[in-house]
Amino acid sequence: MLALRLIERKRDGGRVESGEFRALANAYATGHVPDYQMAAFLMACYLRGLDRGETHALTEAMLRSGDTLDLSDLDKPRIDKHSTGGVGDKVSIVLAPLVSSLGVVVPMMSGRGLGHTGGTLDKLESIPGFETQLTLAQARAQLEQLGCALIGQTDEIAPADKKMYALRDATGTIESIPLIAASIMSKKLAEGLTGLVLDVKRGSGAFLPELERELELATTMIELGADHGCPVVALLTAMDRPLGRACGNALEIEESIAALRGEGPPDLMAVTYALGAEMLVLAYAAADVDAARRMMEIAIGTGRAAEHFQKIIEAQGGNPAVVDDPALLPQAAEVELFIAQKRGFVARIEPRAVGRGVTALGGGRTTMEDKLDLSVGFVISARPGDWVEQGEPLATIFARDRSGVDVGRSALRTAITIADEADPPLPLVSHRVTSAGVELLVGR
Amino acid sequence: MLALRLIERKRDGGRVESGEFRALANAYATGHVPDYQMAAFLMACYLRGLDRGETHALTEAMLRSGDTLDLSDLDKPRIDKHSTGGVGDKVSIVLAPLVSSLGVVVPMMSGRGLGHTGGTLDKLESIPGFETQLTLAQARAQLEQLGCALIGQTDEIAPADKKMYALRDATGTIESIPLIAASIMSKKLAEGLTGLVLDVKRGSGAFLPELERELELATTMIELGADHGCPVVALLTAMDRPLGRACGNALEIEESIAALRGEGPPDLMAVTYALGAEMLVLAYAAADVDAARRMMEIAIGTGRAAEHFQKIIEAQGGNPAVVDDPALLPQAAEVELFIAQKRGFVARIEPRAVGRGVTALGGGRTTMEDKLDLSVGFVISARPGDWVEQGEPLATIFARDRSGVDVGRSALRTAITIADEADPPLPLVSHRVTSAGVELLVGR
Repeated sequence: MLALRLIERKRDGGRVESGEFRALANAYATGHVPDYQMAAFLMACYLRGLDRGETHALTEAMLRSGDTLDLSDLDKPRIDKHSTGGVGDKVSIVLAPLVSSLGVVVPMMSGRGLGHTGGTLDKLESIPGFETQLTLAQARAQLEQLGCALIGQTDEIAPADKKMYALRDATGTIESIPLIAASIMSKKLAEGLTGLVLDVKRGSGAFLPELERELELATTMIELGADHGCPVVALLTAMDRPLGRACGNALEIEESIAALRGEGPPDLMAVTYALGAEMLVLAYAAADVDAARRMMEIAIGTGRAAEHFQKIIEAQGGNPAVVDDPALLPQAAEVELFIAQKRGFVARIEPRAVGRGVTALGGGRTTMEDKLDLSVGFVISARPGDWVEQGEPLATIFARDRSGVDVGRSALRTAITIADEADPPLPLVSHRVTSAGVELLVGR
Repeated sequence: MLALRLIERKRDGGRVESGEFRALANAYATGHVPDYQMAAFLMACYLRGLDRGETHALTEAMLRSGDTLDLSDLDKPRIDKHSTGGVGDKVSIVLAPLVSSLGVVVPMMSGRGLGHTGGTLDKLESIPGFETQLTLAQARAQLEQLGCALIGQTDEIAPADKKMYALRDATGTIESIPLIAASIMSKKLAEGLTGLVLDVKRGSGAFLPELERELELATTMIELGADHGCPVVALLTAMDRPLGRACGNALEIEESIAALRGEGPPDLMAVTYALGAEMLVLAYAAADVDAARRMMEIAIGTGRAAEHFQKIIEAQGGNPAVVDDPALLPQAAEVELFIAQKRGFVARIEPRAVGRGVTALGGGRTTMEDKLDLSVGFVISARPGDWVEQGEPLATIFARDRSGVDVGRSALRTAITIADEADPPLPLVSHRVTSAGVELLVGR
């Protein structure tokens, strides 16, 4: 009866109270409210919206539906980074070992890929033996020892959110700012953080392609953090083209290792340093972003960051030798160059088309049950704005067989546009949002 | 994938095409689209609306999801009446034998009670032995023989509607005009009618209490009928108080039998004659409503209508002796008068409160699984506008035990208001709506 009453009230534009969200989330997590009632409720929330108080209450309700990581006795800053998701976005895999090698605790809980974006957990599992499904107790022990754990959302963390997210994915209720913000923040707040850095993606490959909506999402999450005493800083970064060159699970691990050695592509390094600097400043480990950047450069230059990644891999059951020898990662059977069909400027590299191409190669999911081929994907060497001659290589296709090569070639033909002119791409890091407001960074 | 695409399109205010409704309804009826996706779709339809073309397509899709009664070879007019539901509304039980005794085929498919309104099937089942779950073949044979069958929605008729209606009931998506209209009309059109009379209830006890929305519902159903070559006439009738005196399953059968003998309460007789006259005119069995009314008075006066009811009861396995001896119907153990606590005018008899009282006595459902006590209910002799003295009987309570009497008394105290003044009640039959427009009948 509670569910029906709340569905009707939200449908008619009314408010749902804090205790009601709590009761609904618990009843749903324990199977006392059926999926079909929650689906109707979520569609009413999507179309009628939630105000700030309701968004706070929903976050709280999902957070309290499960356990949390209590790390307060660690007596160290605990900072995580969250990205709204993009193609080629392997920043988490670089940042977690890098920032934790500098004394900051990074309890990083990630998801799997679905749709056109990849997932950090899938990428990590391309490291032979790497285990992402730790219990909270295991994660806690590793955080004490190494300051970092790279884990999936356990059944203990925000179970109401876990179930609701899967339902939203199947019922067209994903792209709602209050629902996205509450979902992300309920999980992040369960990590017991002292600060959080958000990477809100902009552009055609982003979750919410309009700038206004991206800023609203950032602001909503910052407010939710503030409500829980967790300062949040958001950077808006470019997702009008893939980030870095590698797109595909093992290929992205290889590029992440290169980045930890200072050999990553410039765009990936720039976004990694920008987000890492905010993490270090939020942790009071650096006085400002310039000092923070120097700390990261040293950690990379001395090999400390890469060594720290080896320790994390070893602690989670993976083969640490991949860091020195990426050939130990899954290798695609077929590797072939993709060349320019004509001369001109690289006008667009459409991230959604690239992401769908990885999925078509077998490296991404269309349903949660799909099994992945972790070896496949693309390494795209061309960058928007480059001048290319006909026959010049633009990318490398990694496929499991010859027909995969054709699939990959067709995807890249859709994704990469060569034209007589190229509009300038979005700035890599364009806005910084905090509880104080929005700061424009372009030109910095 | 189809379901998700349609959810997203309707959510964003787009249109769903005819073939898409067809595919969705079939996939849902056969279990290939889960309840949670249909629930999200229905909420999006509720909040975004359906235009006339979409409402037509949905009706058609639900109609075609199952079998239909093909009665075209009967070569007789086939007319049904449908009511949007009210408290004390036993008109179907009077009209079906009455109109079919005059040579019109009446294939009447009814529902069960839920919420504050009773259901024709439950009422009929208070006749010992009466079977409402006929197959289409059985119903067809009886329609050929007697011109009337009083049946429930079989699994063969509009299965997509049957499943969707139950889902809407649990997900707050009932009160949508296009969804209501499509649901009713998909079932009615499956009866192979040559005409349909709608009783759209008005007032506080009605499904949609606002006049404007009632007229919109009537118009929508008239349009859907016209699209299928089935002329529809709607009358708006009063549901600001219960219709007739009896409220409760067996009690309403008893009052229906009285009406078939011409001894029903005046308001019930007036509404029955008004609707029946429209049926007879639509059937070309009478030249106008006055002639139709005289035909019905004769059928009642000669006993032919009551005898015809006996034949129908016998054909459906019931005991026809109840028509001559209503004491054969289930009898309540406790019968007690309810008296006026003070003198004054009967200002209100609130149908929803009376209906909830019947449910509280055990005569109505709150879930589809509830078992009913068919003997309980009220006979309310007071009418709005009556002057009553303190201690004067207003109603009789029929309960299964002493605590039931208390429950009934408390319900009637809420339902019946005695005051110094009484506003005039709504006119019994106020509007007539056809494809030609709305005609005001008040004063006629």
